[in-house]
Amino acid sequence: MTANLELSQKFDFAKSLVCSAVAFLRAQMDQPFEVTEKTDFTDLVTDMDQKVQDFLMSEILAVYPEDHFLAEEGDYKQAIGSGKVWVIDPIDGTANFVAQKQDFAIVVAYYEDGIGKFGLIYDVMAEQFYYGGGDFDVFCNDEQLVPYKDKPFSQFLLAINPGMYHSNHGGVAHLAERVLGVRTYGSAALSSAKVLTGQLLGYISHISPWDYAASKIMGERLGYATVTIEGKQPNFRDREFIMIVPKVRLAEIQDILEG
Amino acid sequence: MTANLELSQKFDFAKSLVCSAVAFLRAQMDQPFEVTEKTDFTDLVTDMDQKVQDFLMSEILAVYPEDHFLAEEGDYKQAIGSGKVWVIDPIDGTANFVAQKQDFAIVVAYYEDGIGKFGLIYDVMAEQFYYGGGDFDVFCNDEQLVPYKDKPFSQFLLAINPGMYHSNHGGVAHLAERVLGVRTYGSAALSSAKVLTGQLLGYISHISPWDYAASKIMGERLGYATVTIEGKQPNFRDREFIMIVPKVRLAEIQDILEG
Repeated sequence: MTANLELSQKFDFAKSLVCSAVAFLRAQMDQPFEVTEKTDFTDLVTDMDQKVQDFLMSEILAVYPEDHFLAEEGDYKQAIGSGKVWVIDPIDGTANFVAQKQDFAIVVAYYEDGIGKFGLIYDVMAEQFYYGGGDFDVFCNDEQLVPYKDKPFSQFLLAINPGMYHSNHGGVAHLAERVLGVRTYGSAALSSAKVLTGQLLGYISHISPWDYAASKIMGERLGYATVTIEGKQPNFRDREFIMIVPKVRLAEIQDILEG
Repeated sequence: MTANLELSQKFDFAKSLVCSAVAFLRAQMDQPFEVTEKTDFTDLVTDMDQKVQDFLMSEILAVYPEDHFLAEEGDYKQAIGSGKVWVIDPIDGTANFVAQKQDFAIVVAYYEDGIGKFGLIYDVMAEQFYYGGGDFDVFCNDEQLVPYKDKPFSQFLLAINPGMYHSNHGGVAHLAERVLGVRTYGSAALSSAKVLTGQLLGYISHISPWDYAASKIMGERLGYATVTIEGKQPNFRDREFIMIVPKVRLAEIQDILEG
């Protein structure tokens, strides 16, 4: 399948846009920023999140004034099912951004009538840029990512939300027992990116649409399913228990989770 | 305090040695390597671990033929308390090395009569080299690391062994509730290095002498204690439940762990 010219141009625009947003963020990172708690002290937002989101939205609207947004900050909560919708997480891994200045990402995904057209994840400090999906091959920087290669669970690492593992929510501890080890990186996008590169079997967490929208599109092209832990399609509205795992192992993983 | 000339020369030798070992490992990484299970399928060793350890030991013996070793692989288990002892972890984070080819380190520490003289941790793929301790300032590459700066627990991330968190071993879940979030990186040395840079409050895991020997020396110079979760000195012999945490917060952390 070849992407049409208009969509290819939009993808090129998005790649350039995300690189500009990274430069914008890095230029301001050494200045002090304001940190605000949202629902509790572990749920943070900074004024940098807002500034990066504003930057992305204004650049998109300058070129595509009719497009809509589903974005982490503010009231931009367009339903994904109809129209042209950009899904934006200006800083994924905000706690890492605040406490470590490392392991956070700028994330953008683009959907038309509910169908993912391309996704982009930029690991800002490691300078790893993941992009593609839909009709586009998936790359990390200049290297094309290859589809999922099967191997035994015992040879894979798995990223899990630590609270879910602690409480064995959804039976994730059963799956953890079957793999080589468990990791927690504090960024949904970067954890998912490690799945896309084959460095992890999967990633399971309690996350929102902007956390999984981009990796879902890229993952579909590489053989991964992004579903709720019950195996349903995510609703692109609420925070849900979501996993990104190899499609060929999905049924087996669900069996293990159900214990 | 200024280090004596002989020790400074030994430290320079060690820095150069670790860089050579990194080059040695990277040159061979694209070739296939053998993976062997030690105690179970999650406890791996590769022939690369053995090769890197052999390289380090032979280079040290060529210059310091009288020195002794406490090393992860084989029977080099010199007691730390007397004489000149090099503590070696040829590949810390072997599971990451095997499954991700990322997030692993070459680790060397040097003790005289039980006193840590310097430690070195090289994050091979990220090219971050941590070195110093004892009479030497601690650096990451060219940047000198600064001593621990206090802030509230709620603004810090914490790295914990995921099994300990799952089972609340030693009360680690009580501490996890007080911090911004929990992380798991799969490398004791690299987790400890993030403590030394101020990116984590601490690191708690079930580890062996070669896992903590280097970071303990560097940490002492920067205001961190490396102790068992009961607050005792590690024995440099067995695998123990060890934490590296800020000295000024040690008593409070122990109170929290004891619940």
